[in-house]
Amino acid sequence: MKASLEKLREELRQNNTMEVIRLCGSVRPQKVVDVIADWEPEEIHQLLVLQPAFIRTEIFSNLPEDLQLKVVSRMKRDQLAALITDMASDDRVDLLQNLSDEVRENLLPAIAQAEREDIRQLSSYAEGTAGAAMTSEYVALSPDVTAADAIAILRKEAPDKETIYDVYAVNEQRQLVGVTSLKDIILAPPSAAIKDIMNTDVISVQAHEDQEKAARTLQTYDLLTLPVVDERQVLLGVITHDDALDILVQEQTEDIEKIMAIGGLHEVGIYMRQSPWQHFRNRIGWLVGLAVLGMVSGFVVQTFENVLMQLTLLAAFMPMLADTGGNAGSQSATLVIRGLALGEIKMGDFLRVIFKEFQVSLLMGSLLSVLVFLRVLFFAGDSTLPAGIALWKVGLAVALSLGIQVVSSTIIGAILPLLVHRFGKDPAVIASPAITTFVDITGLLIYFSTARFLLGL
Amino acid sequence: MKASLEKLREELRQNNTMEVIRLCGSVRPQKVVDVIADWEPEEIHQLLVLQPAFIRTEIFSNLPEDLQLKVVSRMKRDQLAALITDMASDDRVDLLQNLSDEVRENLLPAIAQAEREDIRQLSSYAEGTAGAAMTSEYVALSPDVTAADAIAILRKEAPDKETIYDVYAVNEQRQLVGVTSLKDIILAPPSAAIKDIMNTDVISVQAHEDQEKAARTLQTYDLLTLPVVDERQVLLGVITHDDALDILVQEQTEDIEKIMAIGGLHEVGIYMRQSPWQHFRNRIGWLVGLAVLGMVSGFVVQTFENVLMQLTLLAAFMPMLADTGGNAGSQSATLVIRGLALGEIKMGDFLRVIFKEFQVSLLMGSLLSVLVFLRVLFFAGDSTLPAGIALWKVGLAVALSLGIQVVSSTIIGAILPLLVHRFGKDPAVIASPAITTFVDITGLLIYFSTARFLLGL
Repeated sequence: MKASLEKLREELRQNNTMEVIRLCGSVRPQKVVDVIADWEPEEIHQLLVLQPAFIRTEIFSNLPEDLQLKVVSRMKRDQLAALITDMASDDRVDLLQNLSDEVRENLLPAIAQAEREDIRQLSSYAEGTAGAAMTSEYVALSPDVTAADAIAILRKEAPDKETIYDVYAVNEQRQLVGVTSLKDIILAPPSAAIKDIMNTDVISVQAHEDQEKAARTLQTYDLLTLPVVDERQVLLGVITHDDALDILVQEQTEDIEKIMAIGGLHEVGIYMRQSPWQHFRNRIGWLVGLAVLGMVSGFVVQTFENVLMQLTLLAAFMPMLADTGGNAGSQSATLVIRGLALGEIKMGDFLRVIFKEFQVSLLMGSLLSVLVFLRVLFFAGDSTLPAGIALWKVGLAVALSLGIQVVSSTIIGAILPLLVHRFGKDPAVIASPAITTFVDITGLLIYFSTARFLLGL
Repeated sequence: MKASLEKLREELRQNNTMEVIRLCGSVRPQKVVDVIADWEPEEIHQLLVLQPAFIRTEIFSNLPEDLQLKVVSRMKRDQLAALITDMASDDRVDLLQNLSDEVRENLLPAIAQAEREDIRQLSSYAEGTAGAAMTSEYVALSPDVTAADAIAILRKEAPDKETIYDVYAVNEQRQLVGVTSLKDIILAPPSAAIKDIMNTDVISVQAHEDQEKAARTLQTYDLLTLPVVDERQVLLGVITHDDALDILVQEQTEDIEKIMAIGGLHEVGIYMRQSPWQHFRNRIGWLVGLAVLGMVSGFVVQTFENVLMQLTLLAAFMPMLADTGGNAGSQSATLVIRGLALGEIKMGDFLRVIFKEFQVSLLMGSLLSVLVFLRVLFFAGDSTLPAGIALWKVGLAVALSLGIQVVSSTIIGAILPLLVHRFGKDPAVIASPAITTFVDITGLLIYFSTARFLLGL
């Protein structure tokens, strides 16, 4: 099967239209997408126009966003209007929002009234909200309908709906009053009313809420679809399980990239297609910012230049001290950011988190202090020491600094994301390199102050 | 609704049995789990024994693993056997594998033959494989069954099946030959055979394959369930969409923790419940290892002690140089690890990735070099310089080192995960702090060698 798709490009170039149609029709559209994802947009366009409408829509909907836009720019207005009319309601809104105002304005009149109204409604929600992620293709019935009638209605509506397995019950005001499943409807006596079999403890989210929260809710309750409502509980749409999965993968890509100080749009699966220039723009901001912050460490070192000149051995432990603090801070920051993202750490847990990190860091700091003390004592004996300064005193200064550094870095790493979360922002903006660079500064201050104090330099 | 559950603990303590049953019966089991997750195991046990069997099973199955074990240890053998018999086939295998051999051996005879056989089969797959994540509660029919008969069979089997929406067609050898959906069966003419409506391009995974690969396959094809087969295509079980979602969240937690040099089991949602001692054990290994590696940087500094003594200004740029290299390396490593995890970067892309990172790092290194050169020229003039060394020469040495450091760190960050992946390991083991510490060493070598060469120290 795979081997045959590899001939697709060749067949297309030789204009073997029937063979191209046969190949694409015999496999899942996603497999075709996999093969054509690195083709030229013009070739993809040629392939798409050959396909029957429903296969074209499926292939197109599965293309990455940037490729969709390149292909769209090659389509005639009526082709595009037909494609958009066929697309799932949430997919087409995503596409339209990426088009220029001009193209969109030109296009809308060519789309049928019903779809236009649907697009208008779904487009009204800000990107990243549950409203923007929902589809309007779900089934809603009156709670008084019988199971037998419900099956008849589902049969009629199924071809146009993304999902018919969750069935929502709404009252005359379209307020959500219950939910049931096709499974329960099939199992119920044909004369039973939906209201007799439905679950009235409906899990839902509001349209303006974060799409990540919506996806996590769907995950928590193992739902197939999650209803989206307005503040009066009116049913607006549903988020499907596959979209929730995509949202969570996308959000996690965003989290991991933010934590590692990478900017940009955090789209999934665009590493290879992004130009070096785009990669440069996504990374240089943080790098320059942190280099500037890193120079503050330089000023600290310059300030203590005379301490360093008297005891250059101190310079040998600077990298280890800075690294270890950065590592400890990154660890605690990562665990706290992850706990917050998964909803495990809540507002009321702040003090408990900090106390826990304090305990952990005391254990870590103590062990590391002992190790570094032994290191200085046994492996730094051949270094030149100023008169009156014993090696064990140097060891003590290094060990004490390291202990304080590990404890303070760990707690800084935990507090920063908690604070950011407290102020309603995404804690993942606390990039681990920022913590690393920041605790370099505090670490050097701790180090030289301790050395000056203990060794009298 | 929420308010009433808050009284649950109080009602339980006052032995208001009927009220406890009513409260738990009126909401989703997950909401009960949310409320009881921080109770004492003994209280949870008391609550569970009061519940009707199907609610008890639902609540118990949704508890975190460590709590499940604590509650189980309080159950009588027959209670536990009944609970296990009621649980979904994949959930109970997970639980049994966490019990001690003794408890399990004692328990199995109390479980009915059919369930015991099912447990034996599912337990035979190693943890982390598709086989270990699958459930045996799916529907498989002969391709010759008609749509009408299929609906009748589904009605009969639905109560015992986790999912009836995907229907698999198997031949006499139970080999998977096609898949269809309840939706398509309902839409088909009652006399149509399954083989006429089924899709023969079945997406499946083999039981020994990685569960993460299985979950990503389900995501790629927007499936509700993914069939798991053996090497002869015999259908063994299915992975459901909600389990795939849990797997991906779990795998991403694992990835992010590994990248940040955190050890342990990487379970989701256990930050608050883990003891400081357990946290210490998960983190100290990497910290000590990297501190030891960090001391190598110390040896490098000691080796160049005389260079440093002649020009202490060099020490001021050590932290910035080390940090920036670490940051650049972490960025490229993160993007490559993520690209590999999502399957976007493939084996054949290695050289293209390295060339891309080379281009990106040249851009970044050039800009940073210019900035640091200006910094030295305009803000370090008051430092003591040895005779014969002009400030612009120092600036040139620092700038050149920084440029080389950024390029080499970025490429090291990209190559290491590619190599690990090449040898079949999880690229996320290349922890970003390890890269940071490693490029500290290379960075200092570059720095002092360049300074010595350019400035003749």
